[in-house]
This record gives sequence, structure tokens and C-alpha cells, in this order.
Amino acid sequence: MSNLDTLIQDLVIANRVLAKEDVVDAYGHVSVRHPDNPKRFFISRSLAPELIERDDIVELDIEGQPVKDEKRSLYLERFIHAGIYATRPDVMAVVHAHAEDILPFGIAKATKLKPVIHSGSFIGGKVPVWDIRKKFGDTNLLVTNMAQGRDLAKSLGKGSVALMRGHGFASAARSIIEVVRLSVYLPRNARVQLAAMQAGKPIPLSKGEIAARAAGYKPRSPETWRAWEYWATRAGCGDMIGEPDAPAPAYDHKP
Amino acid sequence: MSNLDTLIQDLVIANRVLAKEDVVDAYGHVSVRHPDNPKRFFISRSLAPELIERDDIVELDIEGQPVKDEKRSLYLERFIHAGIYATRPDVMAVVHAHAEDILPFGIAKATKLKPVIHSGSFIGGKVPVWDIRKKFGDTNLLVTNMAQGRDLAKSLGKGSVALMRGHGFASAARSIIEVVRLSVYLPRNARVQLAAMQAGKPIPLSKGEIAARAAGYKPRSPETWRAWEYWATRAGCGDMIGEPDAPAPAYDHKP
Amino acid sequence: MSNLDTLIQDLVIANRVLAKEDVVDAYGHVSVRHPDNPKRFFISRSLAPELIERDDIVELDIEGQPVKDEKRSLYLERFIHAGIYATRPDVMAVVHAHAEDILPFGIAKATKLKPVIHSGSFIGGKVPVWDIRKKFGDTNLLVTNMAQGRDLAKSLGKGSVALMRGHGFASAARSIIEVVRLSVYLPRNARVQLAAMQAGKPIPLSKGEIAARAAGYKPRSPETWRAWEYWATRAGCGDMIGEPDAPAPAYDHKP
Amino acid sequence: MSNLDTLIQDLVIANRVLAKEDVVDAYGHVSVRHPDNPKRFFISRSLAPELIERDDIVELDIEGQPVKDEKRSLYLERFIHAGIYATRPDVMAVVHAHAEDILPFGIAKATKLKPVIHSGSFIGGKVPVWDIRKKFGDTNLLVTNMAQGRDLAKSLGKGSVALMRGHGFASAARSIIEVVRLSVYLPRNARVQLAAMQAGKPIPLSKGEIAARAAGYKPRSPETWRAWEYWATRAGCGDMIGEPDAPAPAYDHKP
Repeated sequence: MSNLDTLIQDLVIANRVLAKEDVVDAYGHVSVRHPDNPKRFFISRSLAPELIERDDIVELDIEGQPVKDEKRSLYLERFIHAGIYATRPDVMAVVHAHAEDILPFGIAKATKLKPVIHSGSFIGGKVPVWDIRKKFGDTNLLVTNMAQGRDLAKSLGKGSVALMRGHGFASAARSIIEVVRLSVYLPRNARVQLAAMQAGKPIPLSKGEIAARAAGYKPRSPETWRAWEYWATRAGCGDMIGEPDAPAPAYDHKP
Repeated sequence: MSNLDTLIQDLVIANRVLAKEDVVDAYGHVSVRHPDNPKRFFISRSLAPELIERDDIVELDIEGQPVKDEKRSLYLERFIHAGIYATRPDVMAVVHAHAEDILPFGIAKATKLKPVIHSGSFIGGKVPVWDIRKKFGDTNLLVTNMAQGRDLAKSLGKGSVALMRGHGFASAARSIIEVVRLSVYLPRNARVQLAAMQAGKPIPLSKGEIAARAAGYKPRSPETWRAWEYWATRAGCGDMIGEPDAPAPAYDHKP
Repeated sequence: MSNLDTLIQDLVIANRVLAKEDVVDAYGHVSVRHPDNPKRFFISRSLAPELIERDDIVELDIEGQPVKDEKRSLYLERFIHAGIYATRPDVMAVVHAHAEDILPFGIAKATKLKPVIHSGSFIGGKVPVWDIRKKFGDTNLLVTNMAQGRDLAKSLGKGSVALMRGHGFASAARSIIEVVRLSVYLPRNARVQLAAMQAGKPIPLSKGEIAARAAGYKPRSPETWRAWEYWATRAGCGDMIGEPDAPAPAYDHKP
Repeated sequence: MSNLDTLIQDLVIANRVLAKEDVVDAYGHVSVRHPDNPKRFFISRSLAPELIERDDIVELDIEGQPVKDEKRSLYLERFIHAGIYATRPDVMAVVHAHAEDILPFGIAKATKLKPVIHSGSFIGGKVPVWDIRKKFGDTNLLVTNMAQGRDLAKSLGKGSVALMRGHGFASAARSIIEVVRLSVYLPRNARVQLAAMQAGKPIPLSKGEIAARAAGYKPRSPETWRAWEYWATRAGCGDMIGEPDAPAPAYDHKP
């Protein structure tokens, strides 16, 4: 299987995993940048992530437009992905979702989402809340053009996650595995933080701890692979994953 | 399949979806107005929604009485549906349920349910709480006659959702798909609002945002269909849904 | 099938339903009084409710001792059942369980569990909290003899439910269907009350409403049967339930 | 089957049970001390607990190093187990996990986890919170060497459970069954305590009650076996458990 085929397959797995782990439902999407052409990315046509097969994956350009003639409907919010890929050359994979347990942190002004558990460290020390209303006034809250996508990406800055007020989140990472892991543990961190707030003032991870965890992270380490294998198995596509020892595809560590 | 057959089939799917998504359990029901006779509607005989088949659907008149001789038991609370159809000509589909997570908002006097997430916008800016005790005194809380059904409909007014104190909710929309979507996201909005209240003062959607979302909504758009397909698949009746491109049945956009 | 066979079958169904609905796990039990001999009752041998078959049901006397020679282990806490049957001639069925969501109300001194939703009305207006420590000092918290069982029954008084501090609850009703329904909706009522407390001061059902609901309740009405059929189907034993129209077994309305 | 084979089999069951009961996910592990050589213990190679088979179990020495040449990856945090076995001769089985509902109690300084329900008594009267930062400064929070493992064990002291700030917990008991039971009920106790704190000041178990429960506990009593059988069945390996009446393997009551 070519590197590109593996990449597409991983994208299909990622969709199913995010559905199984309740990060997405009928809505939400995950994409990956083209390993050989940074101005393109892969994402599904408009379809619930749980139902996605290889043939549903389409190739879009950096403006969110299909590279080939495409009659099938596309996600309205594909500009979240395009906006981030256009702004952040280091990002290779993006998730947008409405995972329920992060939503309170997008609408409760007084409280900031913080990494409070080790598996949540990858959300970074500061998680901005992007409010579409600030620049675009009253909308249907969806990110449906490049101006909005770029504004969201600007709010994300150099970070890994931006919350979107009254809507959801966008997360960005260096590989599919990483963006899935980030997106699965993000709601868990949110739940733990909210619960801890009811028992006292939660202690967040220190800057040094966040940095130590980021420094030690490798997408194809046995620890990361263990989760990938576990999630894929739970999502019913354990037979679709490759071998951890296979040479990492080019897309994995691209800066 | 005739439009009416499709309609009945959609009603069966709606029952199963509402069960799978935990909106209803043994109790709760969904109905649809007859597309050719606004003084009639379809609803199941007295049966748990998860178990409903086509033959369980009965046709009732606008007073909640069966059109044909019917020996099987009917839902005691069918007057919720009758009351709303009698009062609201624009409504084509109704749900009544006891979804657990909306119940706190029906009994906590100090707090109003508000749309705080984009998928909750369809509940509208004001969600009234109807208290059967106000007009009917001490009852078993069930809506078992037209006077009660009409009083509930009056409380609903021009809105989409009325909470019922200590009991549940009634929701109304222009089509089956819409009323299902509304009823699935209603408890989610409630959960997010309650959680956000524990982290600070939640920011609700603005009037303009609610209006923008309502304006852009189409029952058979790819976005809506995506959810319908997803929910039906999860509920085990993905094979029963039609085609999104099929001409929308007459009942879909009737004012 | 004889009335007694039907009764035993219903007891097996009740065990499976309580397991499926998360009222019991490895622990917790349900019993039914012998329809022809009020000084005896049926309950499983020591086994997780989910796994119970007809042959696991044993017959105990009103002191909690097996009627026939029995080599299999019995529930240590069978005296909860014996104590209630001995004290309350109107009770035909008893559940003891540790359903998680009722536990906070047994240990939070300041707050009383109240019926706040219509399906919770059957817990009654006052739900006592029995504390084994009050009379028996430091124990392992289990009810392992008749003195303790009778003391718990005394606390229950004429009610339907007694919470047990740091342990669980005991519920009592006129039939198996009723005690199952009561026990399934008890944790739901508790969850709703606790959530509502976070949004404001919850409005409980009025005395008149509780009375109106109790007055209208019939174990074999279509509404009750609907839930029985639904729960049994979910628990994988829908084929084991009888017919709602069959003459109610003698045990159903015995005072 | 030899005692050792039974022990390994029980360890496989324990892994699956902890996965099914949501104590572990892709991460977390359970180990058992070698019954004949207290300086060795068994644990899986690096693999998600749900997926573990007999051949995945490896034998490590008391410093956390494999006894035989091992090419497969090992858990980075096996030193949690080694540290506890090295320090606590009475401990025969250890669990480390990140069960979500205990995490708030590791980061909310003001609140101590206490046993508040009878099934939670085994966590003991005092549950310390170990903070790796105190001695080791900014790390990735993982316990990856013997110094850290021993420091955690020191914090555990003579207790059954130590929470780990921002990370998870370590639990220790006299047998596999006990450590599983302890680890399954630990998150439940945490949930109940947190919920009760929202309804008032929770009453903890008394010292006398904790002692009475500990005194009466037997790993192969019918009550304990009931849970083991139930959990194994739910985890899909009910056919792998032995007989309760079989002579308890040597490892069960070793001091």
C-alpha cells in the first residue's frame, strides 16, 4: 500500500474512532494535509463520520475547493480546515467537532479551560475561545468561508486547540494520530476540570510539565500506538490499521 | 411508495431514533399531521417507541379520537398532539417526551432554559414552562383531554418547545426530521447550559443568531439529511430511509 | 402455566430488567411474596441478577430461612426482604439495591429526596433515611439478621422507599411490576432533583398530585404494561413475558 | 491447570474486567506478584488491557526488568508496580489507572476522597494524594523509574489507594479479585462523594465501619465470587473463570 493509500486509510479510521469515542456525532470532521502538496488536504464529503469509507474522501485545495469536479455535497465548514492549513505550515491534521463536554467552557466567560490531567497536556497552556460574533456579527455560527476560517486560525495562533463559542472546537496537530488523541482527551480534561471546580480550586499542569510531555511525545511510539490500536479495535476497524514498526509515512513528522 | 407511505415510514424511523437517542424510553411519542387533511394526524397505538412497526400507526382526528374503529389501546396523552395541531396550523409534527436532562429546567424556578449552543438554536429564544396545576389543580400530571392539550398549546404559543413542570416537554416543527432534530438537541442544550452555570454565567445565542439559523434551515438539505441518515443507521433502520434527492413530500414545507 | 410459574418467571424477568436498567449490578436483589402463603417469599440464591434463571429461585420463610434444604449460598441481606414482609402485609414485592444515583441522598444530611417528576411520584412524599449505626453501632453496613431487617422495615413505615445511609435503598410495592417501576424511576428522580438544585430550588410534586397518581395506578394497565414489555425486551427476555389481558395472578392486588 | 496457570488466567480476566468497567482505557495496567517468588511479578507487555491474551503476560523482577529476554515493548510505568511490591510484602496485586472520576480528587486541594459508601470502604480512611512534582520537579508525570515508584509507594504507606495528582491512582491488595473490586468501586465512591457534596456535607463511613468491613472480607466468599463471575461475564470471559469452591491458590491470602 502506498504512503498515500495508508494516509487515506488512517483518515477513515480516524473518522470512525472519533465517532465511537463520542467526539463527533452526525456532525464534525477530521482532515489531513496532502503529504506531497502542502496546498491540499483530504477530508470526507458531507457524511456522518461513523459511516465514512475510502471512496468518501475528497481532495480539497487550500481555499477549501475540490480539486476535481465533485458532484457530492461537501461539508459547509471545510473552511475551518482550509483556514488552519493556510495559516499553519506545521499542522498536518485538523479536527472540528462539537463534543458536548467542551461546550460549557466556550460559553462560561469566567472560566478558562486548562490542562489539569496528563492526557490533557496537549491542549497547551492557553486555550483561546474564538467568538465568530466579534468580527462577523450575527451569523448561523458556522464557519462557511475563508475569511471566517482564517480568523479562527488567527485565534488558534500557535496553539493546538481553539474553542468556538456556542459551537465547538478546532484542534490541530502534526499527524492524524496526534489530532485524534488530542481530540479524544480534550473533553475528558474538560469534564475533570469542571468536576474539580466543584470540589475546590483545580491545580493545572505546570508549564514545565506541559513542555516535558510535548518534548517526549512521538506519534509512533509504543504508547501512542497502543491507543491507536485500542481505539481502532473499539471502532470496529482494528483490521485496517498498519504496523507500528513500518516506516512512518512522510506526513508524520513534517514540520 | 406513495407520499403517505413514506410519511408513515418516516414516523416509524422517528420513533426508533428518539428511542435510540434516549429522548423517549417506554414513554413519549411522536406524531405527524396528515398531509392531505389538516384535521388528522398519525401516531402509534400505545407502545414503546423502540418497538413500533408500520401497523402500529393509527390515524386520529383533531380531537384525538381514532378515525377508524380501534380496539387497541391509545396513548393517554395523545391530546398533547391534538391540542397543538388544533391550535397551530403551521405545525406538521409533534414530540412529547420526558428526556431526563430537560426535567431540571421545568422544576427550578429561578432558571430559564436558553439556547446556548448552535444546535440548540431551534428551541427558540424563550422556552415557556407550562404548569398543569395552574389551571387544573392537582392532577396525575398527564394531559388526558382536549382542554389540557389546548392549554398546553396556548403556553407553547408560536414557539417550538414548551417544558412541562415535573413531567417533560412538547416540541413542534414543520416536519418529522425537524421535530426529531429539535428533540435530540434539546437535552444536549440543557446539559451544556447547566454545566456552564457551574463554571460561570453562560452566554446565550443572540436573537440575531437564532434568526440567522432559523432562516438558513432546510429539512432536506445535505446537512439535515446527514443527521437523519446517521440517526436512522444507529437506530438500526438505515435501510428504511429514502433518498435526500427525492422530491420532498407535501408535508415537508407546508406552512 | 400456573399462576405460581408465571410469578417465578416474572421474578426472573424483574432481575434481568433491574440489571439492564443499572439498578443492580453484581449486588442487589428482588423478591416476591408467595401468593398462597404470606409467610413465604421467593428470591434468587446468591447470584448476580443479570445471570439468574428459574432454577436459581429459592423459597424462604418469613424469618429469611430456606423452606427446603438448600446447599447453595443465599444472599446475606435476605433479611431486608423478610423484615419488610413480616411487618407489611400489604407488600407483595421488595427490591434492595445500591443504585448509584440515590446514594448521595443517603449521606447528605441537609437534603431530603422528594418526588419532583411524575414518574417519581411513587416514592411518596417522605423518603426516610435509615442509618444502621443508630441502633446497631459500627457494622459492615449489611442487613444480616432479622433484628436489623425489622428495624429497617420500621423506618420504612407505610412508605414505598427507605434509603439506607452509605449503602442503598429498599423499596416495597404491591406487585413485581410496581416494585420494578418504582426502583427504575427512583434513581432518575434523584438525578433530576440534584441537577435542579444546581439551577435553583426544585418544586416537588404536591401531596394532591402524589395522591392522584397513586389513585390512578393499575399494575396491568396498558401504560404499565408498555414499560414492562419495553424493559423486558431491552433485557433480552421479551419472549418471557405473558399477556397483559391475561387475568392478573392473585398476587397482583392482594392488600 | 496449575496454580500458576490459574493466576495468569485471572490476570487476563482482570485486565478485561477493568477495561469493561471503564477503569482503564488504552492505558492503565494490573499486575500480580509471583506466588512462589516474592521478588517477581506478572503484568502484560505494552498493550491495551481489553486486548490482552495469556501470551501477552510477561514476568518482571522487583526492579521492573524482564526476567527473560523480551523484545516486545513494556509499560513505561511498570515501576509503579515494582515500587509497591518492593515496599509492601503484604501486597499481592496492583492496579494503576486513570479512571476519570477519581481525577478531580487528585487536583482539588480542598477536598479529600473519603469512603462514603459501603462498597468504597476498602479504599481506607485516608487516601493520600501523591504529587510527583514535590520530589521530582517538572516531569511528564509518568512514573518511569524505581526512585519514582518507591516514592509513590512511600506515599501509599500501609494504605490501599494513593491518588496521583493530575494523573490517576495506584491501588494495592492481597489478591487479584480484591484489587479489581477495589478499583471498580473507587470511582463510584468518588462520584457519590462529589454528588453528595452538592447536596450537603457527606457523612463518611466511620473508622469502626471501615474496620468491620475489612475484617469480614474474604476473597473467595460467595459475595466476592458473585461479583467476579458477574464482571467476567460482562467482559466476555465468563468461561475463563474457575470454581469458587476450588482451593484458593497460594497467592490469595499470602500476608
